[in-house]
Amino acid sequence: MNQPAKPLDVPQRVLLGPGPSDVPARVLSAMAAPTIGHLDPQYLHIMDETRRMLREVFQTRNEMTLAVSGTGSAGMEAAVVNLIEAGDEMAVCVNGVFGTRMRDVAQRAGARVHSIEADWGQTTDASAVAAALKAHPKTKVVGIVHAETSTGAHQPLEEISRIVHDAGALLLVDTVTSLGGIDVRVDEWKIDACYSGTQKCLSCPPGLAPLTLSPAAVSAIEKRKTKVQSWYLDVSMLRQYWGEQRVYHHTAPINMTYALYEALRIVLEEGLEKRIARHARNHRALRAGLEAMGMSYVPKHSLTTLNAVHIPDGVDDAKVRRRLLEDFGIEIGAGLGPFKGKAWRIGLMGQSSSERNVVLFLSALETIMGQMQPSLPRGKALAAAAGVFGKP
Amino acid sequence: MNQPAKPLDVPQRVLLGPGPSDVPARVLSAMAAPTIGHLDPQYLHIMDETRRMLREVFQTRNEMTLAVSGTGSAGMEAAVVNLIEAGDEMAVCVNGVFGTRMRDVAQRAGARVHSIEADWGQTTDASAVAAALKAHPKTKVVGIVHAETSTGAHQPLEEISRIVHDAGALLLVDTVTSLGGIDVRVDEWKIDACYSGTQKCLSCPPGLAPLTLSPAAVSAIEKRKTKVQSWYLDVSMLRQYWGEQRVYHHTAPINMTYALYEALRIVLEEGLEKRIARHARNHRALRAGLEAMGMSYVPKHSLTTLNAVHIPDGVDDAKVRRRLLEDFGIEIGAGLGPFKGKAWRIGLMGQSSSERNVVLFLSALETIMGQMQPSLPRGKALAAAAGVFGKP
Repeated sequence: MNQPAKPLDVPQRVLLGPGPSDVPARVLSAMAAPTIGHLDPQYLHIMDETRRMLREVFQTRNEMTLAVSGTGSAGMEAAVVNLIEAGDEMAVCVNGVFGTRMRDVAQRAGARVHSIEADWGQTTDASAVAAALKAHPKTKVVGIVHAETSTGAHQPLEEISRIVHDAGALLLVDTVTSLGGIDVRVDEWKIDACYSGTQKCLSCPPGLAPLTLSPAAVSAIEKRKTKVQSWYLDVSMLRQYWGEQRVYHHTAPINMTYALYEALRIVLEEGLEKRIARHARNHRALRAGLEAMGMSYVPKHSLTTLNAVHIPDGVDDAKVRRRLLEDFGIEIGAGLGPFKGKAWRIGLMGQSSSERNVVLFLSALETIMGQMQPSLPRGKALAAAAGVFGKP
Repeated sequence: MNQPAKPLDVPQRVLLGPGPSDVPARVLSAMAAPTIGHLDPQYLHIMDETRRMLREVFQTRNEMTLAVSGTGSAGMEAAVVNLIEAGDEMAVCVNGVFGTRMRDVAQRAGARVHSIEADWGQTTDASAVAAALKAHPKTKVVGIVHAETSTGAHQPLEEISRIVHDAGALLLVDTVTSLGGIDVRVDEWKIDACYSGTQKCLSCPPGLAPLTLSPAAVSAIEKRKTKVQSWYLDVSMLRQYWGEQRVYHHTAPINMTYALYEALRIVLEEGLEKRIARHARNHRALRAGLEAMGMSYVPKHSLTTLNAVHIPDGVDDAKVRRRLLEDFGIEIGAGLGPFKGKAWRIGLMGQSSSERNVVLFLSALETIMGQMQPSLPRGKALAAAAGVFGKP
């Protein structure tokens, strides 16, 4: 008994998977500031500024903007369980792991769920949403994933938003893999509930879930006849702690909030527009390199933050990923669901989205695959990427 | 738009409230190690060791021991919603904020709740539990708080455990303010579900909730007819990630796990028995000092980790706490519920439980109160505390 573990031993990786992304030293340092009380005036100030910066990143004026004390999936659950009461109808667009998860969460909340299915890797057509809402006119909430982390598909939202609101429903959007790396215009696109995670394009460790709710969503919550099934995620109580009343609810993850604060500062110092452009440029360069190596993308509309590509025939998935990790310290993601063993997911998110990482990854991959496929022409990937980076 | 906040500015407090407690530099440093992936082999090793050390601190051999990705209240919700299905009967002992919260959580989970009420500040009598179980023989779970953070009451558990198991029910215990500072013998006391928080006697930042489930509790979960209402807290899925299968569930709060790992190492290096004795000695010294100043304790059976005392007549609660914070950097807790404005809650938890802090706090309090009450005799509190510390 009382046998402590060995000293913590953490390797320095290059995180190019589907999240977490690399965390800047500034954020790690901020997180290591002394813990203070969750009702300390200085902590309350940090919360206020965190909310304000979150609004800027979400491009919203929503008062009800906060960070849920859990990882991205807790944000999903918070969005769903606050809007849904048992028996409510919810339509969920399902074309990957996270749409599937949202459906499961909604069912557990007692929703009567209408699935709007599309093939994995595809996006959801606006016409399919229109048809579902015509068939189920009492639908209260439509849930959709903006950036499907399991397939790399980038879902357009504007037309769907119009259809959803014309039908009198609320629009709930998962932006876990887009916020801070791809444009997410909560107010302009009229998103009613939007959540994300900290460990993707915000380049903060996992542990908090940014969440913003429109006045219409808040009004729907206020009109509930029953309590939210989750005490921990009940926005009607959380807002009293994040708002002026400062009523104690639960002890916030203090140091995680420091980290998010610093991560948001970095996002806003760079500027959202520049940051989004950086993600787009590095994606184009990586894509040029991968395609020069003969690889093809899974989705038609790819995210710029996550690149899902088919693994070439005859290439040993696990072996490549193991060599990337062990010999180069690079993490990329395996395929999920129908893409298990068939696709790689290469993230270029936040701090990880850099010219350095594009060049490093393409070089490492070419080295490893060249040893497996001696016929693979060398140097083409880097040349193609350099063509994109080619400074004017 | 895009206006970053000012650089993070965090004061160095002395945390003597009801939690968080002061976090050792070693833990803050560990937390700032580079973020790695949640499926990285090195991270999985850190999880394994964290589970093993948690078992030692919980004094259990329960396989199903893990850290829930949320603060203590998420641990409470996880324990309740996994064991309860809609319509199940649950008895909850209510004698403070956290028993009240547990009842609320159980009701939201659809339980038919039987409250076993005691006055705030009192503990629950075993006879009251026996009577409730006699009246409601189908009760599936009995929930009780070991260390009621709102009143400072220390709840004995052994006799109640016997009664609960004789009635065929499961025992669910909140040890948020006791684990790592007061004896918590999960196996010996036959606790079926036991959760805690990291930010109290483990002296780790808030953000994780240690949870352990007995084989009987796991079996009850396996026999459920319905899904757990919370996807995020569903132990049947969490166990596949924490277990050998390593099935991805949600992205774990990586850096928080580093912090808990290091905090547990510190606990085990000191040794549980010595650590518990340290908490007891510092409590006795503080108590001697406070009583020498004429103050009395709220609960009959006080925790050694949290001291709830009546505020003397004529003393301005808010002013004393403000002066402690602003002039001495010391945080203590206000009263909650019926004790609002009437009690202080002084924590001596984990790293914060030290001779230095006892002496500092008594000196500061005597200084502040002496200015408000010129008749207060000086020096008595320190002398009384020194009597307890008096080295042999």
